[in-house]
Amino acid sequence: MKFCSNCGSEVTQRIPEGDTRPRYICDACHTTHYQNPNIIAGCLPIWGDEVLLCRRAIEPRHGYWTVPAGFMENGETVAEGAARETWEEAEANVRDLTLYAMFNIPYINQVYMLHRAHLVDGKFGIGVESLECRLFKEEDIPWDELAFPSVKRTLKYYFEDRKRGEYPLHIDDLRPPQKRIQP
Amino acid sequence: MKFCSNCGSEVTQRIPEGDTRPRYICDACHTTHYQNPNIIAGCLPIWGDEVLLCRRAIEPRHGYWTVPAGFMENGETVAEGAARETWEEAEANVRDLTLYAMFNIPYINQVYMLHRAHLVDGKFGIGVESLECRLFKEEDIPWDELAFPSVKRTLKYYFEDRKRGEYPLHIDDLRPPQKRIQP
Ligand SMILES: [Zn+2]
Ligand SMILES: [Zn+2]
Repeated sequence: MKFCSNCGSEVTQRIPEGDTRPRYICDACHTTHYQNPNIIAGCLPIWGDEVLLCRRAIEPRHGYWTVPAGFMENGETVAEGAARETWEEAEANVRDLTLYAMFNIPYINQVYMLHRAHLVDGKFGIGVESLECRLFKEEDIPWDELAFPSVKRTLKYYFEDRKRGEYPLHIDDLRPPQKRIQP
Repeated sequence: MKFCSNCGSEVTQRIPEGDTRPRYICDACHTTHYQNPNIIAGCLPIWGDEVLLCRRAIEPRHGYWTVPAGFMENGETVAEGAARETWEEAEANVRDLTLYAMFNIPYINQVYMLHRAHLVDGKFGIGVESLECRLFKEEDIPWDELAFPSVKRTLKYYFEDRKRGEYPLHIDDLRPPQKRIQP
Protein backbone atom coordinates (compact mmCIF):
# COMPACT_ATOMS: atom_id res chain seq x y z
CA MET A 1 0.00 0.00 0.00
CA LYS A 2 1.40 3.35 -1.09
CA PHE A 3 -1.65 5.60 -1.36
CA CYS A 4 -4.77 6.17 0.73
CA SER A 5 -7.76 4.34 -0.76
CA ASN A 6 -10.03 6.97 0.74
CA CYS A 7 -8.43 10.25 -0.47
CA GLY A 8 -5.52 9.30 -2.76
CA SER A 9 -2.78 10.92 -0.63
CA GLU A 10 0.46 9.11 0.10
CA VAL A 11 0.38 6.96 3.22
CA THR A 12 3.17 6.40 5.72
CA GLN A 13 3.76 3.28 7.76
CA ARG A 14 4.09 3.70 11.52
CA ILE A 15 2.69 2.43 14.82
CA PRO A 16 -0.41 4.47 15.76
CA GLU A 17 -0.77 5.72 19.32
CA GLY A 18 -2.21 2.96 21.50
CA ASP A 19 -1.42 0.28 18.89
CA THR A 20 1.45 -2.25 18.83
CA ARG A 21 1.93 -2.80 15.09
CA PRO A 22 2.88 -0.63 12.13
CA ARG A 23 -0.11 0.39 10.02
CA TYR A 24 -0.54 2.39 6.85
CA ILE A 25 -1.74 5.80 7.96
CA CYS A 26 -3.07 8.69 5.91
CA ASP A 27 -2.33 12.03 7.56
CA ALA A 28 -4.47 13.92 5.04
CA CYS A 29 -7.81 12.29 5.90
CA HIS A 30 -6.75 10.62 9.20
CA THR A 31 -7.53 7.08 8.09
CA THR A 32 -5.68 4.03 9.44
CA HIS A 33 -5.64 1.19 6.91
CA TYR A 34 -5.56 -2.28 8.45
CA GLN A 35 -4.48 -5.43 6.64
CA ASN A 36 -5.76 -8.74 7.94
CA PRO A 37 -5.63 -12.46 7.06
CA ASN A 38 -7.91 -14.02 4.45
CA ILE A 39 -10.03 -17.14 4.68
CA ILE A 40 -9.69 -19.77 1.96
CA ALA A 41 -12.93 -21.79 1.92
CA GLY A 42 -13.13 -25.18 0.27
CA CYS A 43 -14.49 -28.71 0.16
CA LEU A 44 -13.35 -32.28 -0.01
CA PRO A 45 -16.25 -33.53 -2.19
CA ILE A 46 -17.09 -37.18 -1.59
CA TRP A 47 -19.02 -39.63 -3.77
CA GLY A 48 -19.23 -43.20 -2.49
CA ASP A 49 -15.66 -44.31 -1.82
CA GLU A 50 -14.19 -41.63 -4.09
CA VAL A 51 -13.15 -38.00 -3.66
CA LEU A 52 -13.26 -35.26 -6.27
CA LEU A 53 -10.03 -33.43 -7.11
CA CYS A 54 -9.30 -30.67 -9.64
CA ARG A 55 -6.16 -30.19 -11.69
CA ARG A 56 -5.20 -26.52 -11.54
CA ALA A 57 -5.35 -24.44 -14.72
CA ILE A 58 -3.84 -21.44 -12.89
CA GLU A 59 -0.68 -20.51 -11.05
CA PRO A 60 0.58 -21.23 -8.49
CA ARG A 61 1.01 -24.98 -8.99
CA HIS A 62 -0.44 -25.12 -12.49
CA GLY A 63 -1.09 -28.73 -13.49
CA TYR A 64 -1.16 -30.07 -9.90
CA TRP A 65 -4.18 -31.58 -8.16
CA THR A 66 -6.13 -29.78 -5.46
CA VAL A 67 -9.46 -29.70 -3.68
CA PRO A 68 -11.88 -26.96 -4.78
CA ALA A 69 -11.12 -23.91 -2.60
CA GLY A 70 -10.67 -20.18 -2.90
CA PHE A 71 -10.99 -16.81 -1.20
CA MET A 72 -14.12 -16.41 0.88
CA GLU A 73 -16.13 -13.42 -0.36
CA ASN A 74 -17.91 -10.64 1.52
CA GLY A 75 -21.57 -11.39 2.20
CA GLU A 76 -21.29 -15.15 2.48
CA THR A 77 -20.68 -17.72 5.22
CA VAL A 78 -17.60 -19.95 5.19
CA ALA A 79 -19.70 -22.93 4.10
CA GLU A 80 -21.41 -20.88 1.38
CA GLY A 81 -17.99 -19.86 0.09
CA ALA A 82 -16.85 -23.49 0.11
CA ALA A 83 -19.93 -24.61 -1.86
CA ARG A 84 -19.52 -21.72 -4.32
CA GLU A 85 -15.88 -22.57 -4.96
CA THR A 86 -16.82 -26.20 -5.52
CA TRP A 87 -19.29 -25.10 -8.15
CA GLU A 88 -16.84 -22.68 -9.79
CA GLU A 89 -13.89 -25.08 -9.93
CA ALA A 90 -15.65 -28.40 -10.49
CA GLU A 91 -19.24 -27.54 -11.50
CA ALA A 92 -20.38 -29.82 -8.69
CA ASN A 93 -23.20 -29.34 -6.19
CA VAL A 94 -22.42 -30.40 -2.63
CA ARG A 95 -24.54 -31.01 0.48
CA ASP A 96 -23.94 -31.74 4.19
CA LEU A 97 -20.84 -29.59 4.53
CA THR A 98 -18.96 -30.20 7.79
CA LEU A 99 -15.90 -28.20 8.78
CA TYR A 100 -13.11 -30.77 8.74
CA ALA A 101 -9.61 -29.30 8.32
CA MET A 102 -8.37 -25.85 9.26
CA PHE A 103 -4.87 -24.73 8.36
CA ASN A 104 -3.30 -21.60 9.74
CA ILE A 105 -0.68 -20.38 7.28
CA PRO A 106 0.60 -17.25 9.04
CA TYR A 107 3.52 -16.60 6.68
CA ILE A 108 1.07 -15.90 3.84
CA ASN A 109 -1.72 -14.51 6.07
CA GLN A 110 -4.24 -17.18 5.18
CA VAL A 111 -6.55 -19.54 7.07
CA TYR A 112 -7.79 -22.56 5.11
CA MET A 113 -11.18 -23.89 6.12
CA LEU A 114 -11.97 -27.13 4.32
CA HIS A 115 -15.22 -29.07 4.64
CA ARG A 116 -16.15 -32.68 4.15
CA ALA A 117 -19.05 -32.59 1.71
CA HIS A 118 -21.05 -34.99 -0.40
CA LEU A 119 -21.78 -34.63 -4.08
CA VAL A 120 -25.52 -34.21 -4.53
CA ASP A 121 -25.84 -36.43 -7.59
CA GLY A 122 -22.33 -37.51 -8.54
CA LYS A 123 -22.27 -35.03 -11.42
CA PHE A 124 -19.43 -32.61 -12.01
CA GLY A 125 -17.79 -30.71 -14.83
CA ILE A 126 -14.63 -28.68 -15.31
CA GLY A 127 -14.55 -25.12 -13.99
CA VAL A 128 -12.60 -22.39 -15.78
CA GLU A 129 -9.75 -22.56 -13.26
CA SER A 130 -9.39 -26.33 -13.73
CA LEU A 131 -7.75 -28.38 -16.49
CA GLU A 132 -9.52 -31.54 -15.41
CA CYS A 133 -11.72 -32.81 -12.54
CA ARG A 134 -11.82 -36.45 -11.52
CA LEU A 135 -13.07 -38.82 -8.83
CA PHE A 136 -10.27 -40.79 -7.16
CA LYS A 137 -10.31 -43.91 -5.03
CA GLU A 138 -7.77 -43.91 -2.18
CA GLU A 139 -5.34 -46.14 -4.10
CA ASP A 140 -5.39 -43.82 -7.12
CA ILE A 141 -4.64 -40.50 -5.36
CA PRO A 142 -1.73 -38.79 -7.18
CA TRP A 143 0.22 -38.16 -3.95
CA ASP A 144 3.26 -36.75 -5.75
CA GLU A 145 1.21 -34.39 -7.86
CA LEU A 146 -0.81 -32.62 -5.17
CA ALA A 147 -0.70 -28.83 -5.29
CA PHE A 148 -0.31 -27.90 -1.62
CA PRO A 149 0.65 -29.46 1.75
CA SER A 150 -2.86 -28.61 2.99
CA VAL A 151 -4.38 -30.83 0.28
CA LYS A 152 -2.07 -33.74 1.11
CA ARG A 153 -2.84 -33.49 4.82
CA THR A 154 -6.57 -33.25 4.29
CA LEU A 155 -6.57 -36.38 2.13
CA LYS A 156 -4.37 -38.28 4.62
CA TYR A 157 -6.69 -37.31 7.48
CA TYR A 158 -9.74 -38.31 5.50
CA PHE A 159 -8.58 -41.79 4.53
CA GLU A 160 -7.34 -42.46 8.08
CA ASP A 161 -10.55 -41.18 9.67
CA ARG A 162 -12.70 -43.12 7.21
CA LYS A 163 -11.22 -46.38 8.49
CA ARG A 164 -12.42 -45.52 12.00
CA GLY A 165 -15.64 -43.83 10.90
CA GLU A 166 -14.84 -40.74 12.99
CA TYR A 167 -14.12 -37.34 11.53
CA PRO A 168 -12.88 -34.87 14.14
CA LEU A 169 -11.94 -31.33 13.16
CA HIS A 170 -8.21 -31.16 12.39
CA ILE A 171 -6.42 -27.88 13.08
CA ASP A 172 -2.79 -27.46 11.96
CA ASP A 173 -0.35 -24.60 11.68
CA LEU A 174 1.72 -24.75 8.50
CA ARG A 175 5.22 -23.28 8.47
CA PRO A 176 7.14 -22.00 5.44
CA PRO A 177 8.62 -24.65 3.14
CA GLN A 178 12.42 -24.84 2.96
CA LYS A 179 12.47 -23.41 -0.52
CA ARG A 180 9.80 -20.80 -0.97
CA ILE A 181 8.29 -19.98 -4.32
CA GLN A 182 8.14 -16.21 -4.63
CA PRO A 183 4.55 -14.98 -4.69
CA MET B 1 -12.52 2.56 -1.68
CA LYS B 2 -12.15 5.57 -4.01
CA PHE B 3 -8.47 5.58 -4.94
CA CYS B 4 -5.94 2.93 -5.91
CA SER B 5 -3.71 2.04 -2.96
CA ASN B 6 -0.93 1.13 -5.39
CA CYS B 7 -0.77 4.25 -7.64
CA GLY B 8 -3.23 6.79 -6.20
CA SER B 9 -5.45 7.02 -9.31
CA GLU B 10 -9.23 6.91 -9.02
CA VAL B 11 -10.71 3.42 -9.11
CA THR B 12 -13.96 2.32 -10.73
CA GLN B 13 -16.22 -0.48 -9.58
CA ARG B 14 -17.15 -3.12 -12.14
CA ILE B 15 -17.17 -6.86 -12.73
CA PRO B 16 -13.80 -7.92 -14.18
CA GLU B 17 -13.75 -10.32 -17.14
CA GLY B 18 -14.07 -13.88 -15.91
CA ASP B 19 -15.31 -12.75 -12.48
CA THR B 20 -18.85 -12.67 -11.10
CA ARG B 21 -18.70 -9.81 -8.60
CA PRO B 22 -18.01 -6.08 -8.81
CA ARG B 23 -14.47 -5.17 -7.75
CA TYR B 24 -12.58 -1.93 -7.39
CA ILE B 25 -10.36 -1.71 -10.47
CA CYS B 26 -7.53 0.69 -11.27
CA ASP B 27 -7.21 1.23 -15.01
CA ALA B 28 -3.99 3.22 -14.56
CA CYS B 29 -1.88 0.43 -13.04
CA HIS B 30 -4.22 -2.51 -13.86
CA THR B 31 -4.73 -3.60 -10.27
CA THR B 32 -7.90 -5.30 -9.05
CA HIS B 33 -8.56 -4.61 -5.37
CA TYR B 34 -10.38 -7.39 -3.53
CA GLN B 35 -12.23 -6.96 -0.26
CA ASN B 36 -12.73 -10.05 1.90
CA PRO B 37 -14.18 -11.00 5.29
CA ASN B 38 -12.23 -10.60 8.51
CA ILE B 39 -11.69 -13.08 11.31
CA ILE B 40 -12.47 -12.03 14.88
CA ALA B 41 -10.40 -14.24 17.20
CA GLY B 42 -11.24 -14.58 20.87
CA CYS B 43 -11.48 -16.68 24.01
CA LEU B 44 -13.91 -17.72 26.68
CA PRO B 45 -11.37 -17.75 29.53
CA ILE B 46 -12.25 -20.25 32.28
CA TRP B 47 -11.08 -20.44 35.89
CA GLY B 48 -12.66 -23.18 37.99
CA ASP B 49 -16.42 -22.75 37.70
CA GLU B 50 -16.11 -19.14 36.58
CA VAL B 51 -15.64 -17.37 33.24
CA LEU B 52 -13.84 -14.10 32.60
CA LEU B 53 -15.75 -11.26 30.93
CA CYS B 54 -14.70 -7.72 30.03
CA ARG B 55 -16.84 -4.59 30.13
CA ARG B 56 -16.19 -2.64 26.96
CA ALA B 57 -14.49 0.76 27.17
CA ILE B 58 -15.01 1.32 23.43
CA GLU B 59 -17.83 1.58 20.93
CA PRO B 60 -19.82 -0.24 19.75
CA ARG B 61 -21.61 -1.40 22.89
CA HIS B 62 -19.62 0.70 25.34
CA GLY B 63 -20.30 -0.44 28.91
CA TYR B 64 -21.59 -3.88 27.92
CA TRP B 65 -19.93 -7.20 28.77
CA THR B 66 -18.07 -9.30 26.23
CA VAL B 67 -15.48 -12.04 25.89
CA PRO B 68 -11.98 -10.90 24.91
CA ALA B 69 -11.87 -10.91 21.09
CA GLY B 70 -10.67 -8.78 18.21
CA PHE B 71 -9.39 -8.69 14.65
CA MET B 72 -6.93 -11.45 13.83
CA GLU B 73 -3.65 -9.91 12.63
CA ASN B 74 -1.35 -10.85 9.77
CA GLY B 75 1.45 -13.22 10.77
CA GLU B 76 -0.42 -15.07 13.50
CA THR B 77 -2.62 -18.15 13.82
CA VAL B 78 -6.26 -17.89 14.92
CA ALA B 79 -5.38 -19.26 18.37
CA GLU B 80 -2.42 -16.88 18.69
CA GLY B 81 -4.74 -14.00 17.86
CA ALA B 82 -7.25 -15.20 20.45
CA ALA B 83 -4.54 -15.42 23.16
CA ARG B 84 -3.16 -11.99 22.20
CA GLU B 85 -6.59 -10.38 22.44
CA THR B 86 -7.13 -11.99 25.83
CA TRP B 87 -3.90 -10.43 27.02
CA GLU B 88 -4.71 -7.04 25.51
CA GLU B 89 -8.27 -6.81 26.83
CA ALA B 90 -7.96 -8.61 30.16
CA GLU B 91 -4.21 -8.91 30.85
CA ALA B 92 -4.77 -12.62 31.28
CA ASN B 93 -2.62 -15.55 30.09
CA VAL B 94 -4.54 -18.51 28.71
CA ARG B 95 -3.60 -22.11 27.87
CA ASP B 96 -5.25 -25.11 26.18
CA LEU B 97 -7.20 -23.12 23.62
CA THR B 98 -9.83 -25.20 21.81
CA LEU B 99 -11.93 -23.80 18.99
CA TYR B 100 -15.45 -23.81 20.41
CA ALA B 101 -17.84 -21.36 18.72
CA MET B 102 -17.73 -20.03 15.19
CA PHE B 103 -20.18 -17.36 14.04
CA ASN B 104 -20.59 -16.36 10.43
CA ILE B 105 -21.87 -12.79 10.31
CA PRO B 106 -22.09 -12.21 6.55
CA TYR B 107 -23.89 -8.88 6.76
CA ILE B 108 -20.81 -7.31 8.37
CA ASN B 109 -18.29 -9.57 6.61
CA GLN B 110 -16.94 -11.14 9.79
CA VAL B 111 -16.28 -14.65 11.06
CA TYR B 112 -15.98 -14.99 14.84
CA MET B 113 -13.75 -17.80 16.06
CA LEU B 114 -13.99 -18.18 19.83
CA HIS B 115 -11.97 -20.67 21.89
CA ARG B 116 -12.52 -22.31 25.21
CA ALA B 117 -9.38 -21.55 27.18
CA HIS B 118 -8.12 -21.81 30.74
CA LEU B 119 -6.52 -19.05 32.74
CA VAL B 120 -2.94 -20.03 33.50
CA ASP B 121 -2.89 -18.76 37.07
CA GLY B 122 -6.23 -17.07 37.70
CA LYS B 123 -4.65 -13.66 37.39
CA PHE B 124 -6.02 -10.90 35.18
CA GLY B 125 -6.06 -7.13 34.96
CA ILE B 126 -7.91 -4.52 32.92
CA GLY B 127 -6.81 -3.89 29.32
CA VAL B 128 -7.02 -0.42 27.78
CA GLU B 129 -10.17 -1.33 25.83
CA SER B 130 -11.92 -2.54 28.99
CA LEU B 131 -13.60 -0.64 31.81
CA GLU B 132 -13.57 -3.66 34.07
CA CYS B 133 -12.80 -7.41 33.94
CA ARG B 134 -14.42 -9.94 36.23
CA LEU B 135 -14.89 -13.64 36.85
CA PHE B 136 -18.53 -14.72 36.80
CA LYS B 137 -20.28 -17.84 38.04
CA GLU B 138 -23.17 -19.03 35.87
CA GLU B 139 -25.79 -17.55 38.18
CA ASP B 140 -24.11 -14.13 38.08
CA ILE B 141 -23.81 -13.69 34.30
CA PRO B 142 -25.29 -10.27 33.35
CA TRP B 143 -27.45 -11.73 30.57
CA ASP B 144 -29.17 -8.42 29.81
CA GLU B 145 -25.92 -6.51 29.63
CA LEU B 146 -24.01 -8.65 27.12
CA ALA B 147 -22.51 -6.77 24.19
CA PHE B 148 -23.28 -9.09 21.27
CA PRO B 149 -25.52 -12.05 20.35
CA SER B 150 -22.32 -14.08 19.75
CA VAL B 151 -21.30 -13.58 23.39
CA LYS B 152 -24.72 -14.63 24.68
CA ARG B 153 -24.77 -17.75 22.52
CA THR B 154 -21.26 -18.76 23.48
CA LEU B 155 -22.08 -18.49 27.18
CA LYS B 156 -25.34 -20.42 26.75
CA TYR B 157 -23.53 -23.18 24.85
CA TYR B 158 -20.81 -23.32 27.48
CA PHE B 159 -23.04 -23.68 30.51
CA GLU B 160 -25.21 -26.28 28.73
CA ASP B 161 -22.20 -28.26 27.51
CA ARG B 162 -20.55 -28.11 30.93
CA LYS B 163 -23.48 -30.00 32.44
CA ARG B 164 -22.85 -32.86 30.01
CA GLY B 165 -19.06 -32.54 30.02
CA GLU B 166 -18.96 -32.44 26.21
CA TYR B 167 -17.87 -29.43 24.22
CA PRO B 168 -18.53 -29.85 20.50
CA LEU B 169 -17.68 -27.06 18.05
CA HIS B 170 -20.74 -24.86 17.53
CA ILE B 171 -21.14 -23.15 14.15
CA ASP B 172 -23.92 -20.60 13.66
CA ASP B 173 -24.86 -18.06 11.03
CA LEU B 174 -26.05 -14.78 12.50
CA ARG B 175 -28.53 -12.65 10.59
CA PRO B 176 -29.06 -8.89 10.91
CA PRO B 177 -30.96 -7.73 14.00
CA GLN B 178 -34.40 -6.21 13.40
CA LYS B 179 -33.16 -2.76 14.24
CA ARG B 180 -29.67 -2.26 12.92
CA ILE B 181 -27.27 0.21 14.43
CA GLN B 182 -25.66 2.11 11.59
CA PRO B 183 -21.95 1.33 11.37
ZN1 LIG C 1 -6.51 9.62 3.04
ZN1 LIG D 1 -3.48 1.97 -9.60
